[in-house]
Amino acid sequence: MADAPADIESLIALMARLPGLGPRSARRAVLHLVKKRGTLLLPLADAMREVGTTARECVNCGNIGHHDLCGICEDERRQNGQICVVEDVEDLWAMERTGAFRGRYHVLGGTLSALDSVGPEELRIPKLAERVKDEGVSEVILALGATVDGQTTAHYIADRLNGVEVTTLAQGVPVGGELDYLDEGTIGAALRARRAL
Amino acid sequence: MADAPADIESLIALMARLPGLGPRSARRAVLHLVKKRGTLLLPLADAMREVGTTARECVNCGNIGHHDLCGICEDERRQNGQICVVEDVEDLWAMERTGAFRGRYHVLGGTLSALDSVGPEELRIPKLAERVKDEGVSEVILALGATVDGQTTAHYIADRLNGVEVTTLAQGVPVGGELDYLDEGTIGAALRARRAL
Repeated sequence: MADAPADIESLIALMARLPGLGPRSARRAVLHLVKKRGTLLLPLADAMREVGTTARECVNCGNIGHHDLCGICEDERRQNGQICVVEDVEDLWAMERTGAFRGRYHVLGGTLSALDSVGPEELRIPKLAERVKDEGVSEVILALGATVDGQTTAHYIADRLNGVEVTTLAQGVPVGGELDYLDEGTIGAALRARRAL
Repeated sequence: MADAPADIESLIALMARLPGLGPRSARRAVLHLVKKRGTLLLPLADAMREVGTTARECVNCGNIGHHDLCGICEDERRQNGQICVVEDVEDLWAMERTGAFRGRYHVLGGTLSALDSVGPEELRIPKLAERVKDEGVSEVILALGATVDGQTTAHYIADRLNGVEVTTLAQGVPVGGELDYLDEGTIGAALRARRAL
């Protein structure tokens, strides 16, 4: 039974493996790409080839860059004694967009999870302990998700690191947030952490 | 302010132009691609380059193929006097998957729309009239969406084509459909088009 040409079907199958796209939306996306061959499909192919051949994980922190060490680990000015521990590179990017943190990062690559049998060895936690010793770190800031797995991981790391201050992000009302729309857990945490005005 | 490396940011910006992906999901998709460089990102780049350099629109029907004429227009066995008119290539693929139609297609590339100032010239309708004369067509089957624009387009085409039978897809209860979940319009159409059992 004839359908789309074979090379287009292979492209659809590859696109359908992206998070956020299913078989039907991959089909729609590919058709859009074929219609915009010159302005979108070929530039995208080039951009993917470029990133695919140059991007690599930083051997020190797990961030994505172009060399063995990422731009942040290479930058001497960012060795300020602070390491911010994040679950994934998205979180590192989000933190960088704030411009509020001037230290270095450590990307775990996930959270501890008994269910998915993810242990400390899978998560660059031994490497973190090593870095705390080697880089003269005075504070480890845990910027992990406020989920059960995130908090389990945070406590595991805090137990494992000795001789260094371990802090975590504050919980409270988001900037611009209305109380009415917040869950009770968040309001309760914000109340307990209240401060003088 | 440091963020993702520039080439990754460009890739994210291109991915965000795909239908179904926004800036946030494009970021997530690109990060997934970077993690699966060897098994997904580079194969995807190659597949895109391949499709981008070989795919083209059929000059006769608007389908996507590899030559000036698509596989269906090249196939003499599919010249059976029937042309099925569809809005877009997705619809052609959907129709082909049924295996129920053995004639040729004509892809309009959209529907007439006063709001978006899409007129007959934008839609390959003149080409359809030409083909009806040149290819010895006896029946034009309109497989357009059951939307206002789709039906307006269907009536416009029926008015414009002379000396040829113009039919349209039946409306009714979808196969496997439960009445309870159908809208009144569909049930009404199915009732009016009822047939002897």
